[in-house]
Amino acid sequence: MEEFADAVVRKFQKELNAGTVSLVLLAIMSRSDEPLYGYQIAKQLEGASDAGIPLKQGTLYPVLRSLESQGLLSSRVEPSVSGPPRKYYSITSTGTAVLESWKEAWSRTRDFVDGRLEGGRG
Amino acid sequence: MEEFADAVVRKFQKELNAGTVSLVLLAIMSRSDEPLYGYQIAKQLEGASDAGIPLKQGTLYPVLRSLESQGLLSSRVEPSVSGPPRKYYSITSTGTAVLESWKEAWSRTRDFVDGRLEGGRG
Repeated sequence: MEEFADAVVRKFQKELNAGTVSLVLLAIMSRSDEPLYGYQIAKQLEGASDAGIPLKQGTLYPVLRSLESQGLLSSRVEPSVSGPPRKYYSITSTGTAVLESWKEAWSRTRDFVDGRLEGGRG
Repeated sequence: MEEFADAVVRKFQKELNAGTVSLVLLAIMSRSDEPLYGYQIAKQLEGASDAGIPLKQGTLYPVLRSLESQGLLSSRVEPSVSGPPRKYYSITSTGTAVLESWKEAWSRTRDFVDGRLEGGRG
């Protein structure tokens, strides 16, 4: 595909990632029995690149901060023996409730999009 | 759900819509045998509200303009007997090619998200 069209596809993927990365991160945090720091969370997302979804590790941190500023995650900083202090994230009770609503919004949107791609208006 | 959490869900839905509305619009235009104007395109999207996806008609027009500025749609303005001139949109050959790539990006992203929501790292 030519360079221009390639850029258009990258822009689209970036738009898709905007909502879905928040959703996946919150789901990861909801399943974790203990607080996780950035690198551990990034490891959980590694499959994204394997699945052909361009997702730079650097895009993770703004999303974590955004989830925290919305009250869906909380964090605490702890010293690390092997390097700089680490910021550990946990899901809040608001985060757990919001995740359920996000999952419903995702299912509705996914089914609507799939229905429209298949054709028809059903 | 409390007002705050409600706002967080609306923000999320808006993020999900960012990429998916472009995708659905391009798919609609790709299936149409003839150029369509805004109202006709909006009619095709009506099911969205029925499916519980908040999608205002006003959000349609910026997306149409964006698709045109990216060269995926072309438009021509024609006089209307019943009111102001209408802007008719058609998909371009670039749009048709890009739609295929967008569909692939959508499928990959959808499957990745669904996999992560089900749990596990698969």
